[in-house]
Amino acid sequence: MLPFPIEEYRERVQRTKQRMAQEEIEVLIITDPSNMNYLTGYDGWSFYVPQVVVVAQDEDEPLWIGRKMDLNGARSTTWLQPDNLYAYSDHYIHSDKRHPMDFVAHVMKERELDRWTIGLKMDSYYFSPQAYEVLRADLRHATFRDFERLVPWVRAVKSQREIHYMRQAGQICERVMQVGVDSVRPGVRQCDAVANIYHAQISGTPEFGGDYPAIAPMLPTGRHTSTPHLTWTDQPFVRDEATILEIAACRLRYHCPMARTVYLGKPPVKLRNTAEIVVEGVEAALEMMRPGVTCEEVEAAWQRTINRHGLYRNSRLGYSIGLNYPPDWGEHTMSLRPGDRTVLEPDMTFHVIAGIWQDEPGFELSESVRITDGAVEHFTHFPRQLLIHD
Amino acid sequence: MLPFPIEEYRERVQRTKQRMAQEEIEVLIITDPSNMNYLTGYDGWSFYVPQVVVVAQDEDEPLWIGRKMDLNGARSTTWLQPDNLYAYSDHYIHSDKRHPMDFVAHVMKERELDRWTIGLKMDSYYFSPQAYEVLRADLRHATFRDFERLVPWVRAVKSQREIHYMRQAGQICERVMQVGVDSVRPGVRQCDAVANIYHAQISGTPEFGGDYPAIAPMLPTGRHTSTPHLTWTDQPFVRDEATILEIAACRLRYHCPMARTVYLGKPPVKLRNTAEIVVEGVEAALEMMRPGVTCEEVEAAWQRTINRHGLYRNSRLGYSIGLNYPPDWGEHTMSLRPGDRTVLEPDMTFHVIAGIWQDEPGFELSESVRITDGAVEHFTHFPRQLLIHD
Repeated sequence: MLPFPIEEYRERVQRTKQRMAQEEIEVLIITDPSNMNYLTGYDGWSFYVPQVVVVAQDEDEPLWIGRKMDLNGARSTTWLQPDNLYAYSDHYIHSDKRHPMDFVAHVMKERELDRWTIGLKMDSYYFSPQAYEVLRADLRHATFRDFERLVPWVRAVKSQREIHYMRQAGQICERVMQVGVDSVRPGVRQCDAVANIYHAQISGTPEFGGDYPAIAPMLPTGRHTSTPHLTWTDQPFVRDEATILEIAACRLRYHCPMARTVYLGKPPVKLRNTAEIVVEGVEAALEMMRPGVTCEEVEAAWQRTINRHGLYRNSRLGYSIGLNYPPDWGEHTMSLRPGDRTVLEPDMTFHVIAGIWQDEPGFELSESVRITDGAVEHFTHFPRQLLIHD
Repeated sequence: MLPFPIEEYRERVQRTKQRMAQEEIEVLIITDPSNMNYLTGYDGWSFYVPQVVVVAQDEDEPLWIGRKMDLNGARSTTWLQPDNLYAYSDHYIHSDKRHPMDFVAHVMKERELDRWTIGLKMDSYYFSPQAYEVLRADLRHATFRDFERLVPWVRAVKSQREIHYMRQAGQICERVMQVGVDSVRPGVRQCDAVANIYHAQISGTPEFGGDYPAIAPMLPTGRHTSTPHLTWTDQPFVRDEATILEIAACRLRYHCPMARTVYLGKPPVKLRNTAEIVVEGVEAALEMMRPGVTCEEVEAAWQRTINRHGLYRNSRLGYSIGLNYPPDWGEHTMSLRPGDRTVLEPDMTFHVIAGIWQDEPGFELSESVRITDGAVEHFTHFPRQLLIHD
């Protein structure tokens, strides 16, 4: 069932250990499901209970520690030897007396990993303050260090096989956007358009299926085009309104997002102008994206272009993408914004997303791309313009 | 856009304040999106960045504090006055220099809420150790206390309007399960069955649409019926195998989950027997569910029944359900398991879920119900048996 050869996982672990050595961290406790998947292959909707992967300099393979009910899942989806899989019973769940991290600490002691410098990602979705306090209390001889985004940085440059899956996600994404754009029609309920979008996301193509994206489809419409993260309602789309489609497709947890804006009727001149400026700005940014350029230089190219037309926007222009789980498909490493001086390298992958919401209706456009030695590779091919249903 | 009258939200805040008073907590910082929604109405897929609701004894209304991009969303979906909405800029996001909780602390100081006993949910999905440390460092004059599941307990007994939405979720859920069962056929790819399920979840009924459930559909099939949390693949269903469908429908964030098992072909005698025992056990538990009975007594009724037939199962038999967001539709309060002595009350709502996975193929069956003065109300009506496609 593994989507990558074992050698690729081993090589990822090796690069993680090199970074750990640079940071003088002997043991990593990994709580983020995408980092867990990246290093071990583990894939299951079980991240609503505590589960970890441990990488130690002295251990050949990572350890997987999760809930007993998920042990068979770990056996099926990881490349790890059976004696590197540990599972806790259900009486650890939502209990006032014990916490799953007590079990994790117990395993760490058993494997003699409890007296080292332990790295943790302190700002992680599925790692709570209580989980951290239990670990600290149980592992008194360890020194804890925030390793921040160590594994996400290891993930920043993609392998050829990862890019293959992102291209597949791109193929699904084009279909999803087409279905979405076709569904936004006067009188169609928003929920029915989103139902069609979900169907396209999951059925994928005849050759390969889709996985669940890390974020639900967003379709802000009408006055809600200025509220980017509201989900759909039962209301129908109406004539003379804009709808923003911010969607993605996912293949084996690898994402390709895309945003477009659809107008039902004859768009106001102001929206048409905004659209043209945004398209020009995004294309200026995309032209800038090549090895050796920094993230902030890419954003500056966009900013210069739209400023020349009298438009301003303060939020970032994009971010690194790849493998992920809900609630976010962003990798939380590179951001295309002022101050981010990360230098672009070949096979980094980005979601370049521009939105102008200061006026109603808002306008949004995005592209998912790979850095190459030359011009960026686009994961999707879909008209880069305001889409209009007359 | 509010799904409840403002009086209902005010009454929820009132009951929260009463519990706070009992616990001697003056200020609550709420990080869980379902608790935020319950008290303010806030609904958006924005929980991937830090956002909080603050309830203070001295404040008439809660405060909402989130990302600037989501401020319009808070204006649209909450009942709060504009001056109780606060938003931070994007330069707080994924920054090494500042954290959104710095902004939260700043607001707390401005509102003079920084010198009290502050309650926090220390085991929460979207509240990280770093967020907690930033808050503690910034609010030095406050005393922090883990308030555990204070708001979830306020949510335990549902209002008539909440039950109305859960019944609607139940109506959608019946359709979803029918679509799912119909889609599990030899040669059909798993991803295509799940695509149909998603479509049914979101399109809902002609009268009302569906919302995104907090958990993706699970369809473990064949040998994977013993791995409950693996999601689908591209592989087709095959004859002479069982498939477990664990799905839900959601209406305005209120859930109704259901699980059934489908067999393609003539089921093995052992599976048929297991199914009969599980059905009998679940029905024994359901009969036990009435006001005055404890959670553990319900589980004991199930356990007695299956033990009589030589079956044993250690995980819990169910849990409280209602309003929720990914990654879990459970409320994390009552569990139907030994040791939980919570007494059932009218209008509590449960997902009673039984699975036997020790053998292959596994078997699962569940019902979502409401406690009434008499027999439980079932939110769905769907045959309670092993479903067979010959």
